[in-house]
Amino acid sequence: MSGNFISFEGPDGAGKTSVIKALVAELKPSMGDQLVVTREPGGDPFSAKLRKILFDDANRGMDGRTEALLFAADRRHHVVSTIMPALAAGKTIFCDRYVDSSVAYQGGGRQLGEQEIWDINAFATNGVMPQLTVYFEIAPEVGIARIESHRTDQVNRLDEETMNFHHRVHAAYQHLYQQYPQRISRIDASKPLPKVIAETRRVIHDRFPDLFDGKTKGVN
Amino acid sequence: MSGNFISFEGPDGAGKTSVIKALVAELKPSMGDQLVVTREPGGDPFSAKLRKILFDDANRGMDGRTEALLFAADRRHHVVSTIMPALAAGKTIFCDRYVDSSVAYQGGGRQLGEQEIWDINAFATNGVMPQLTVYFEIAPEVGIARIESHRTDQVNRLDEETMNFHHRVHAAYQHLYQQYPQRISRIDASKPLPKVIAETRRVIHDRFPDLFDGKTKGVN
Repeated sequence: MSGNFISFEGPDGAGKTSVIKALVAELKPSMGDQLVVTREPGGDPFSAKLRKILFDDANRGMDGRTEALLFAADRRHHVVSTIMPALAAGKTIFCDRYVDSSVAYQGGGRQLGEQEIWDINAFATNGVMPQLTVYFEIAPEVGIARIESHRTDQVNRLDEETMNFHHRVHAAYQHLYQQYPQRISRIDASKPLPKVIAETRRVIHDRFPDLFDGKTKGVN
Repeated sequence: MSGNFISFEGPDGAGKTSVIKALVAELKPSMGDQLVVTREPGGDPFSAKLRKILFDDANRGMDGRTEALLFAADRRHHVVSTIMPALAAGKTIFCDRYVDSSVAYQGGGRQLGEQEIWDINAFATNGVMPQLTVYFEIAPEVGIARIESHRTDQVNRLDEETMNFHHRVHAAYQHLYQQYPQRISRIDASKPLPKVIAETRRVIHDRFPDLFDGKTKGVN
């Protein structure tokens, strides 16, 4: 496995997707198909069928453990069909959400147990883990407010359960950051987007100096 | 959980299904819907969709871990939708294959690790386990020969990998029996079917004397 595997984590509203877009826009012209941008859950026919089950109205109220096992199956498929081949070919992977999302949302948010969700995902990944995970940290209230910014009058109507859910997700991400400080770099995502992009760029450059062909120097 | 949960395990060719049929034929008239006969993988719409993915030709050569996670998801669904409600209602469940099948076939046969398969299934069952598991033990060669009995000339053509697979399944079942002697009762399935039925009846009667309303006495 000679490639570079970088995952991006954090709640919706933290700017994760915008940051990935900005970095891809910069890197894609020079890297071409050496840069693989992927996300979970995946989009191939296998994943599409699983998503149909996961998000089918008929399965509304699906048991949390059933859902967690289906997500883990989808992850395993993603690892085998996309991530491992790309790494074996020496490519660089940007993956929007990976194992930490399951631990944070299902383990923390849905209270299925962070360790238990970690364990079934360890089975799914079988040791294929990012060398670097960029974690966009933001207070749950701020993240939610950003998502709801086009209809701010509704923010206060979010019920307590929803806010508690997002606080549990946040706490689980913080635990992961404490457990895996070597792998996870935390970015303050409450800052303006250009600053978050620059900071992410610096973190990636520090770990993979060759990736930007030295172009990072002096930009920040 | 006030009901009785009995699972039946062993390789194809051990007579498992015939034994269940014989016992159900005896018990169903008096027990009616108090006896729930079920099997894995299940047959409701959710399971049907998962099976379609599992057995779709397009997914031939599916990664073993992906498959194991999908089976575990199907098991979880079966536990939540069928087993837990029946146990809560005080019913008796006969389940044709349960956790041990996954450990034996995927952990042992497919060499994914018996403990690892046990662990993801422990997540799936969340402690819902049979009080009694009847394990039909038979030497792999004998079981295979029975399945192939209508075309015995083909037995020798089974390639080595296939026989090794069945030997690993057998070894994994034996490990389970050694690990859980309180839960698992082993039956010598090499005997003629009527003897295997009588022995199974005795084992179940010993653990659940009320089930046969005393009718077992003197039958063996």
